[in-house]
Amino acid sequence: MRKNLSRREKVLELLYQFQDQYLSGEELSNKLGVSRTTIWKYIKYFREVGYEIESSSKVGYRLLKRPDKLLPEEIKRNLTTEIIGQDILYYQQVDSTNQIARKKAEDGAKEGTIVLAERQVAGKGRLSRDYSSPQGGIWLSCILRPDLKPVWATRVTYIISLAVAKTINRLTAVEAKIKWPNDILISSQKACGILTEMGAELDQIDYLVVGVGINLNFALAELPSQLHTKATTLYSELGEKVDRLQFLQRLLLEIENYYQRLTDFDAILAEWKEYAYTLGQEVVIKDAKRERKGIAVEIAPDGALVIESNGKREKVYSGDVSLSHQEFDSGN
Amino acid sequence: MRKNLSRREKVLELLYQFQDQYLSGEELSNKLGVSRTTIWKYIKYFREVGYEIESSSKVGYRLLKRPDKLLPEEIKRNLTTEIIGQDILYYQQVDSTNQIARKKAEDGAKEGTIVLAERQVAGKGRLSRDYSSPQGGIWLSCILRPDLKPVWATRVTYIISLAVAKTINRLTAVEAKIKWPNDILISSQKACGILTEMGAELDQIDYLVVGVGINLNFALAELPSQLHTKATTLYSELGEKVDRLQFLQRLLLEIENYYQRLTDFDAILAEWKEYAYTLGQEVVIKDAKRERKGIAVEIAPDGALVIESNGKREKVYSGDVSLSHQEFDSGN
Repeated sequence: MRKNLSRREKVLELLYQFQDQYLSGEELSNKLGVSRTTIWKYIKYFREVGYEIESSSKVGYRLLKRPDKLLPEEIKRNLTTEIIGQDILYYQQVDSTNQIARKKAEDGAKEGTIVLAERQVAGKGRLSRDYSSPQGGIWLSCILRPDLKPVWATRVTYIISLAVAKTINRLTAVEAKIKWPNDILISSQKACGILTEMGAELDQIDYLVVGVGINLNFALAELPSQLHTKATTLYSELGEKVDRLQFLQRLLLEIENYYQRLTDFDAILAEWKEYAYTLGQEVVIKDAKRERKGIAVEIAPDGALVIESNGKREKVYSGDVSLSHQEFDSGN
Repeated sequence: MRKNLSRREKVLELLYQFQDQYLSGEELSNKLGVSRTTIWKYIKYFREVGYEIESSSKVGYRLLKRPDKLLPEEIKRNLTTEIIGQDILYYQQVDSTNQIARKKAEDGAKEGTIVLAERQVAGKGRLSRDYSSPQGGIWLSCILRPDLKPVWATRVTYIISLAVAKTINRLTAVEAKIKWPNDILISSQKACGILTEMGAELDQIDYLVVGVGINLNFALAELPSQLHTKATTLYSELGEKVDRLQFLQRLLLEIENYYQRLTDFDAILAEWKEYAYTLGQEVVIKDAKRERKGIAVEIAPDGALVIESNGKREKVYSGDVSLSHQEFDSGN
């Protein structure tokens, strides 16, 4: 059994170990050194959160099925990270996981703490836009405390988008691309958005909260109709559901792997470029103040997109990007 | 009488208007349309916060002296700003005004809101260093919401340091200089520190909290002894106290004036240079990772200090600066 398990996690672990046979209340009680009444309370809890557990007064308990929920106990069972996801805050429904994560970060939450919700009812995209977040997606915010100046924070967005794209491409049959600066596309439609927020001194990041919203196991019809021509979901693309728990565990591991290589940004960027949707294409970039057009030629070391127009190169740090023959905006 | 005064502010205003004569409880009661018992409660409040108010059952009340405190009612009496200081949160003692201001900003406090405390017991300098903040100083945090990308946040530090230096030079007989990036010196000793913190998306500042700590009306002996060779106070330099209220009102006005000109950063920078302590001198700049030495030649448009060494120029964004023949650090 893994170390440092809570008693509740130990009960769950034993249920999994004895999944092919029955485990009596007495055995559980002896193995854990607690009363049978206490064991019963744990079983009751697991049933309430959605586990199917068979019980027979003669032979004991047997785990039949886990719920389709991103429960911390389940995430931790097969999580191989050392930092990301060691602390998990899990909610059925929240306004916005980023909002909760920022408050927790302000109050000193540890690096790697993640906030997860089954649904967001006031999910946030870039520039305070709405972000639809129905049941079945992954709505995740991660607290990071990199030893970086604020100007380098963009690098973290790169590693997160890379981690999402790689997880999709390794675990599923679709091909994800990254649209600079922070969208993941499948079949040229948006399947994931990333919102990075920070608390910082001018010299030093105090915390980053990286929000990741992935349209995973729900149909496109669950999103507002104005998004149907721009967005997609993995379920719509694949025609079947992905194991959400396994997907999340892999994503957390990819985030951690890239995060530990953050100082080697050249290598990160080289890998990012393999997924880049925008590079080499003619793009239009809009922000509140102006619109720029040009060929997206490269990514600068500071994370800026370099566009070229009439032989002149210009760095762009943010904005809504579309290919000049298509129109995107930044909803889901 | 100014508009939109609270009833308490109206009572105070009338006491000031009739400072040379007595104002009877009945007159006050009639002018404000409230009972004499209510008037008595206000008088009691003002006495409790430190006002000296003479009262005689025959002739009424007379204001003799206001307390040496930065009370919101007093600040607002002669404040000519339109944004900065319209909302004032005032405390006798806090851990850190920046900490309070950040929480208020997260909760949506308006641009221009200021947090003031008579004393801080866990005042913060750059990089979480301690900042001693005894009674008699100005410990101020200001919430700003400029329409800027995080990379331009440094500009706000420039205008705040400029506002502090100008206020000192206009209102007192000493000469303040600005030591890049964020200290105000008098006689080459630190008299004020500025700590800018932000909450932001990568594209857009949500809020800045600018903390300003000014060693005003207290003796150098009030600071920890290890600071005595590096710091100074206006009281120590001048040998007398400055009108703290008037100083603060002027400072808020200077901040507002410069803040409204934020987009014309060239002009701000030109003025800043007149106060610059560091430019043209040989400096040593230390941060956690390395030490750089060179002549401080200029300020770049993005607020970086440009240093030149062996004919090569380099931009420096932060760090502890000392003239190469002296040693500073960043305490008070």
